[in-house]
Amino acid sequence: MSNIAIYPGSFDPCTNGHLDIIARSAPLFDKLYVAVLKNSDKKPLFSVDERIALLGKATAEIDNIEIISFGGLLVNIAEQVGARVIIKGLRAMSDFEYEFQMALANKGLNPNVETLFMTTNTDNSFLSSSLVKEIARNGGKISQFVPEAIEEEIAKKLY
Amino acid sequence: MSNIAIYPGSFDPCTNGHLDIIARSAPLFDKLYVAVLKNSDKKPLFSVDERIALLGKATAEIDNIEIISFGGLLVNIAEQVGARVIIKGLRAMSDFEYEFQMALANKGLNPNVETLFMTTNTDNSFLSSSLVKEIARNGGKISQFVPEAIEEEIAKKLY
Amino acid sequence: MSNIAIYPGSFDPCTNGHLDIIARSAPLFDKLYVAVLKNSDKKPLFSVDERIALLGKATAEIDNIEIISFGGLLVNIAEQVGARVIIKGLRAMSDFEYEFQMALANKGLNPNVETLFMTTNTDNSFLSSSLVKEIARNGGKISQFVPEAIEEEIAKKLY
Amino acid sequence: MSNIAIYPGSFDPCTNGHLDIIARSAPLFDKLYVAVLKNSDKKPLFSVDERIALLGKATAEIDNIEIISFGGLLVNIAEQVGARVIIKGLRAMSDFEYEFQMALANKGLNPNVETLFMTTNTDNSFLSSSLVKEIARNGGKISQFVPEAIEEEIAKKLY
Amino acid sequence: MSNIAIYPGSFDPCTNGHLDIIARSAPLFDKLYVAVLKNSDKKPLFSVDERIALLGKATAEIDNIEIISFGGLLVNIAEQVGARVIIKGLRAMSDFEYEFQMALANKGLNPNVETLFMTTNTDNSFLSSSLVKEIARNGGKISQFVPEAIEEEIAKKLY
Amino acid sequence: MSNIAIYPGSFDPCTNGHLDIIARSAPLFDKLYVAVLKNSDKKPLFSVDERIALLGKATAEIDNIEIISFGGLLVNIAEQVGARVIIKGLRAMSDFEYEFQMALANKGLNPNVETLFMTTNTDNSFLSSSLVKEIARNGGKISQFVPEAIEEEIAKKLY
Repeated sequence: MSNIAIYPGSFDPCTNGHLDIIARSAPLFDKLYVAVLKNSDKKPLFSVDERIALLGKATAEIDNIEIISFGGLLVNIAEQVGARVIIKGLRAMSDFEYEFQMALANKGLNPNVETLFMTTNTDNSFLSSSLVKEIARNGGKISQFVPEAIEEEIAKKLY
Repeated sequence: MSNIAIYPGSFDPCTNGHLDIIARSAPLFDKLYVAVLKNSDKKPLFSVDERIALLGKATAEIDNIEIISFGGLLVNIAEQVGARVIIKGLRAMSDFEYEFQMALANKGLNPNVETLFMTTNTDNSFLSSSLVKEIARNGGKISQFVPEAIEEEIAKKLY
Repeated sequence: MSNIAIYPGSFDPCTNGHLDIIARSAPLFDKLYVAVLKNSDKKPLFSVDERIALLGKATAEIDNIEIISFGGLLVNIAEQVGARVIIKGLRAMSDFEYEFQMALANKGLNPNVETLFMTTNTDNSFLSSSLVKEIARNGGKISQFVPEAIEEEIAKKLY
Repeated sequence: MSNIAIYPGSFDPCTNGHLDIIARSAPLFDKLYVAVLKNSDKKPLFSVDERIALLGKATAEIDNIEIISFGGLLVNIAEQVGARVIIKGLRAMSDFEYEFQMALANKGLNPNVETLFMTTNTDNSFLSSSLVKEIARNGGKISQFVPEAIEEEIAKKLY
Repeated sequence: MSNIAIYPGSFDPCTNGHLDIIARSAPLFDKLYVAVLKNSDKKPLFSVDERIALLGKATAEIDNIEIISFGGLLVNIAEQVGARVIIKGLRAMSDFEYEFQMALANKGLNPNVETLFMTTNTDNSFLSSSLVKEIARNGGKISQFVPEAIEEEIAKKLY
Repeated sequence: MSNIAIYPGSFDPCTNGHLDIIARSAPLFDKLYVAVLKNSDKKPLFSVDERIALLGKATAEIDNIEIISFGGLLVNIAEQVGARVIIKGLRAMSDFEYEFQMALANKGLNPNVETLFMTTNTDNSFLSSSLVKEIARNGGKISQFVPEAIEEEIAKKLY
């Protein structure tokens, strides 16, 4: 029996919070897909290809993950790659309510896929890609929020 | 003594969640106005007239309701139609906080109008018009979220 | 068509918060039953009879209310007095979640009875019978939290 | 690589909510331990042995589960049975905050064990063992909240 | 030892809620800076200079405050004016979660600056600049939400 | 102008969470009173005198604090020691709501005393005296949750 999970997100860029979820959930499954959302509505800082490259660099030491991109419904890509589990990180209550509703909707759309939630490490509890970008844009130090390689890429983009 | 209530919303389009609130609150009052908000800021999927028509079709069997549109302050339209009660559905805590603040503000603007909250049926607890549209846009099945007639109208709009 | 509501609680003793809900909901219904819970588990400060008497004094000017006591399931007493509506006051989010669950459970037990929620007046948003008693026990002034008559009765009980 | 999870609780008695979590999480793991807490503080309705028997009857058709009892720290029993995952069901936000804190504490006590959260089915979102017992004690119908076999056992205990 | 605090915000325009926080926190510090955020993204109703002027008029009777504007990171302006304390008002839980995350992020960026939270007066618990502007735009009365001088300025802007 | 604050609690025993709040708030005031609640209702693990001694040992290096005990209303002891500020730590949303209500009640009882809230350090966000005692009682390691001296005292009490 194969045991596959998918961890979806925008990852624009990935933060230490995302990387903590990846590092902790990968050992629980045979394979973990990290799925980068192609969201045509928003203006991202990094292109989908760049985001995949950054994730690849930052997770190079984890064997059983594969980084992919997806559009459309999450339950469809989950089914396509054979994932029975969607992994989501919860930082706080406001996350929870939205994610709870999405989990119920996804369950309605495809009862074969379960969403499992994981708490973020407390050190990352306030971290988000948006916050990191906002701090960087205002000249703040982000070395404690993202890996060094990503810090440099953000600097290149912004200055 | 006349006992009139008003149930406001964008209804773009109405979902099973809205229809559940309407079906359960109509019997509690002599008359229930379902009031469609004319919101010039957002780009709706359906025009106000179309939304009124869809609501009309979906609530055809309820005698004591009237579907109207409104702009401006909710307490003004409430007073105009003689409603002493504003009905709002609560799905979850995030709804609650916003609605709580609006209820207090409306009470401040017109102390004669009370807001009464109703819990949504659990099956609809994650439903919103936006979610339905997002699922439909991505080719997901929405037959469990909206009446059949509305499902067809959404399909016509999107494809 | 008769339009009856029931407002249940422990009322040990009633506070300005309870009285605000009673004063605002009574005009919305033909009749409002204020139902005092006989809770054998807790040690109340006032007996059920005393609580009914205090409520009676404090609501003497409202015509269409009747104060009763009840044990057992709320939906049963609601049905017995012909109430289609249960009124509950919400002070804050923590209230909301518990009350939401009770409303769903009551709906499951008797689909003919609806729970409607009302926000408390902001001045009473932190008020509870327990808090009032705790303040009184510690010699604090409670005149802004309960009617004068009740303040005196609490003093008699505690000193 | 063995993939074992543990689902802890009081289960006094198990409800449809618990059984839904068990049925949905068992297929995601090679083995699921359902662990009944021996809580000496509270006065349970059912003894630990009775609770295990009820769970056994209600989950008879699921092959890969084993029902055990435990005292002391959850992370210790998890380690003892070789579970890398603790499964918890979340009904609502108030659950979430407590469970979040426990997950962080457990992570602090044993970093090798992850807590994964699962949303309850919406139909069970207001269900708890306490509520079921309270309704039963007051003569309410609980057939929609627990399996038939458990309904009968509760009746035997209470009458 | 000098004891300086900073109270940041958009103040577009300041409401009775903001003024309540200013009036209550100013006496607790030797000096309170009220810092108006220059936010180039949003289209404000009042320019930064106008917002400073309105705040100045509304706080004329408080001696130990100085109204300034700032861009960039809040912790930088705090350090620049020698403030060890950031003051934030909390109206409700949704405020809390966002502010909590910002406080943790700011603590990460500059551990020498503490964020202290103050509850809003209950009468202002639902007040926000956006709500005031929305009500005013729809012809509602805002005299209970802002000082008279600001009410007039809003009227001038909108009509 | 004297600038005095009071930080109340049960401190049975004090945890790293309490000590973090003390260490961060003491520098913001001329004097900080740490006030141990004499709560006759609960059965504490440590007596009030023991709790004061433990706090004394753990805060020996902070000059401007004084550890006292109190019964009755917090606002009374605050006034007695000349404190204009009550300091409270917030770990999570559930804390917030209760503390918010207490802050409003205290403001009602004595408008001259302000409650200021401080976020806990993320590492301590799940910590409580009860949790520490529960873990210790079950033989878990608590060295990361309390100072070494307190760990030993808890061990003496429990074994």
